[in-house]
Amino acid sequence: MFYYQIDDNIKLSLPDIHRADEIAALVGENLERLRPWMPWAVDEYSAEHAKDFIQRTLKEFAENGRFNVMIEVNEHLAGSLGFHDLDTVNRSAAIGYWIGKEFEGRGIVSRCCRVLIDYLFDTMKLNRVQINCNVENIRSRAVPERLGFKLEGIHRQVEYHNEKYGDWAVYAMLKDEWNKLER
Amino acid sequence: MFYYQIDDNIKLSLPDIHRADEIAALVGENLERLRPWMPWAVDEYSAEHAKDFIQRTLKEFAENGRFNVMIEVNEHLAGSLGFHDLDTVNRSAAIGYWIGKEFEGRGIVSRCCRVLIDYLFDTMKLNRVQINCNVENIRSRAVPERLGFKLEGIHRQVEYHNEKYGDWAVYAMLKDEWNKLER
Amino acid sequence: MFYYQIDDNIKLSLPDIHRADEIAALVGENLERLRPWMPWAVDEYSAEHAKDFIQRTLKEFAENGRFNVMIEVNEHLAGSLGFHDLDTVNRSAAIGYWIGKEFEGRGIVSRCCRVLIDYLFDTMKLNRVQINCNVENIRSRAVPERLGFKLEGIHRQVEYHNEKYGDWAVYAMLKDEWNKLER
Amino acid sequence: MFYYQIDDNIKLSLPDIHRADEIAALVGENLERLRPWMPWAVDEYSAEHAKDFIQRTLKEFAENGRFNVMIEVNEHLAGSLGFHDLDTVNRSAAIGYWIGKEFEGRGIVSRCCRVLIDYLFDTMKLNRVQINCNVENIRSRAVPERLGFKLEGIHRQVEYHNEKYGDWAVYAMLKDEWNKLER
Amino acid sequence: MFYYQIDDNIKLSLPDIHRADEIAALVGENLERLRPWMPWAVDEYSAEHAKDFIQRTLKEFAENGRFNVMIEVNEHLAGSLGFHDLDTVNRSAAIGYWIGKEFEGRGIVSRCCRVLIDYLFDTMKLNRVQINCNVENIRSRAVPERLGFKLEGIHRQVEYHNEKYGDWAVYAMLKDEWNKLER
Amino acid sequence: MFYYQIDDNIKLSLPDIHRADEIAALVGENLERLRPWMPWAVDEYSAEHAKDFIQRTLKEFAENGRFNVMIEVNEHLAGSLGFHDLDTVNRSAAIGYWIGKEFEGRGIVSRCCRVLIDYLFDTMKLNRVQINCNVENIRSRAVPERLGFKLEGIHRQVEYHNEKYGDWAVYAMLKDEWNKLER
Repeated sequence: MFYYQIDDNIKLSLPDIHRADEIAALVGENLERLRPWMPWAVDEYSAEHAKDFIQRTLKEFAENGRFNVMIEVNEHLAGSLGFHDLDTVNRSAAIGYWIGKEFEGRGIVSRCCRVLIDYLFDTMKLNRVQINCNVENIRSRAVPERLGFKLEGIHRQVEYHNEKYGDWAVYAMLKDEWNKLER
Repeated sequence: MFYYQIDDNIKLSLPDIHRADEIAALVGENLERLRPWMPWAVDEYSAEHAKDFIQRTLKEFAENGRFNVMIEVNEHLAGSLGFHDLDTVNRSAAIGYWIGKEFEGRGIVSRCCRVLIDYLFDTMKLNRVQINCNVENIRSRAVPERLGFKLEGIHRQVEYHNEKYGDWAVYAMLKDEWNKLER
Repeated sequence: MFYYQIDDNIKLSLPDIHRADEIAALVGENLERLRPWMPWAVDEYSAEHAKDFIQRTLKEFAENGRFNVMIEVNEHLAGSLGFHDLDTVNRSAAIGYWIGKEFEGRGIVSRCCRVLIDYLFDTMKLNRVQINCNVENIRSRAVPERLGFKLEGIHRQVEYHNEKYGDWAVYAMLKDEWNKLER
Repeated sequence: MFYYQIDDNIKLSLPDIHRADEIAALVGENLERLRPWMPWAVDEYSAEHAKDFIQRTLKEFAENGRFNVMIEVNEHLAGSLGFHDLDTVNRSAAIGYWIGKEFEGRGIVSRCCRVLIDYLFDTMKLNRVQINCNVENIRSRAVPERLGFKLEGIHRQVEYHNEKYGDWAVYAMLKDEWNKLER
Repeated sequence: MFYYQIDDNIKLSLPDIHRADEIAALVGENLERLRPWMPWAVDEYSAEHAKDFIQRTLKEFAENGRFNVMIEVNEHLAGSLGFHDLDTVNRSAAIGYWIGKEFEGRGIVSRCCRVLIDYLFDTMKLNRVQINCNVENIRSRAVPERLGFKLEGIHRQVEYHNEKYGDWAVYAMLKDEWNKLER
Repeated sequence: MFYYQIDDNIKLSLPDIHRADEIAALVGENLERLRPWMPWAVDEYSAEHAKDFIQRTLKEFAENGRFNVMIEVNEHLAGSLGFHDLDTVNRSAAIGYWIGKEFEGRGIVSRCCRVLIDYLFDTMKLNRVQINCNVENIRSRAVPERLGFKLEGIHRQVEYHNEKYGDWAVYAMLKDEWNKLER
């Protein structure tokens, strides 16, 4: 029921238990594209998996303010965006996202990320935002690059998924840098 | 950060830990009006009380979908609305609300209640919505009466507050009745 | 093992884990009469259900003093009596009861209720005792009427049981009223 | 409120939170006699200590059937009796007791112990009941000796209390032995 | 990984989750000898049982310093040694042990017990160490007798195992006595 | 009491609650050197802090096998070594260490790290070991460099400590690489 309106077409909505079927359907349609990168994108992804995701994300939101939201385009679920590894001592977090095939290539993820990054720096008072992309996920890496993040290193074999190890490109943005970028 | 837009001016927003000060200020300004009816409206109401309220409400929202929201009018916090006594076996809940002096008399609470009642019947699949008002709280009783609720009884000395017992007027609306009302 | 002797024939005994079979047998014999009103009176009611009931009631008794007891007539289990919705802030509780067919019509429940009501007002220091009866349960409604409770209202469709909604007649007794009744 | 009547004068009552003051008073009057043997008998024993004792004993009764009861003589609290070290795998438990000065020398403890031992063997289905007495506590040792328990050994320095070590005389009764005793 | 070296051949090692298979194998080889005395020595003893044992013992070690260790002889698991019934108020504990057939008769258990007893008296600051042996377990009873423990009593039918009751010979050693023994 | 002997002089010992004073003393002597890099190295570091550290590390060891150990040189506490960020899904962990001034410059840390890295790859079956050093901590960075780790990146402002942000040099070693190094 609750959301944040980004522009006339796009909003970020808190995962809603009454829409678990819709979330499962979106994941199902995009399973081929998600499976190589997302450990949670299992073959038999169902409304039960979606309910788990929803309840975990609401529980964490209640406990420490961390959230995942659904990206909606003209009232259709389009993808997801969130942050993890929230570290209030060192004032940092990492962003993750995915979007359905149908909604790709329109800059929707970047627009949503800008809003989230503003929120993390301005409202959550963080100092550093990190984005970890599989080195081979070119579409995903385009997001931090377009947003002006700095590539800080390549972490080798840092993720074990689908029975092979993947490397991460680690990007980061500092609060001072973000404020200097024209937006 | 997350809300539901009712019309151009009014929205219902999830309590936000970053706005605890604003909530405490609103309660403080309306303390004289709240104290006779609301057990939680203590003299020294502070941002800490507001944080407690926010965290409890988010936790319950995560656990069972029950929520309290803030009423915002043109981006200013104006009051609060929520439901309690959620009983999914018997499919019922009770609504509670309050609004600041400055925002009174414009039908804002009734408009917000309509949205909440729709949500309870349509999305939460409830069958009965109850509103309990102190018999002497005329302004509060006007809400269920305007919305077409039926007065089912007067419960005597059902609430102990400020060292005296209060009676409740108990109003209820059934799903079938609500659907027959023109809205 | 532990009980409260009401008169030469009747006692109220704490549910005893060693008598789970007896409790299940009593429920089984009275299933036809209990099923329309009692959500817990399921067709396959067994000693396991009775053990659950016993352990929950002892646990609550330990935690907050709330209890259910068995009514015994000449050492035979005859029915049950207890209170729920204990609210120590507002100083109120609600009473519930049932008795086996064989023991009906002798005023046993009323006699037991008098003892419990005295206990709630005098020992537990409550101010209000409520009894909720299904409007169609004439035998049950006779108890508060005989004891001098006031009918405060009819709550419509407040209980969902056996796939239909039931209305409650809500009766209440205040401490002052009880003390004025001759007993 | 709940008790077990032993004879016209004596009953065993479940500790009752509404009688914490009475329990504290009884302990206070007997502090000189209890302190040498009972680790819980502290100088500043208060109603709060009694409430702790009551809540712990009711909680354990709910969880595993273990209990402590108050000994009442003609409605006056006289002492306490209970069992501990309940071991349902090996089917054993140990009994403890104390009685106020005023009630001593009348065989009250032995009479109460008989009822408890019957309960442990017959209802709880135990096989062995143990009584541990400080070797120097002659009055306490008289109880198992009078009841026909067998002295199995002396455990040296098994208890540290009041800054010195105490030895225990360990007595035991087996179910078969108990059943052969004429009672 | 972690151990205490007793002499060139013998060490006491903390149970290691990576060696659950080895522990299960040792128990399996000695099942005939363990089953009469050890309740945990079940017919189908497996690596899962060993993992349970390991995790429980490490958890207790973390919580209160109580431990069980494996006896290793020339890097082969040979048996086990530990203490239980740790009572820091009364400053006592009880020792338990077993060793595989292949390693018996060389005084290994006694040598290990000496180290453990020193640890309990000197590092853990205990005052009393008890050893309970089934009266018929002659090999086991030889250990406290060889170490100079005093037989304090015979506890009858104190253990129910393999559908019969067993008696315990209870031995104890006090700190003062231990210090006077020449070692 | 439990340790792993590395050579005649050096051992790794599990933190021992009975040696909390010794640990606190070692930290106290090295506070000047630890404070710039270690968030836990607070001015008033006491035996209570050491006990907290010991209990947390034993608890985690019990729960998931993760540990910190003390480095001992000729029975004197010299420093500490451990691993964190244990990720059994992705099969990785990160190593941390410090050593007292008096023991520096003899290659002790590197020798201990080799043993730990062997353990992580061979016994814990990990695939990747990471070491994060503050970029300015030259002595600390010498360890992964000497051990043949690869510098994968510099993470900017990733740590907030002593009111300023610190950058990390992130080094990593893969199992295949480690096995190819001559050791």
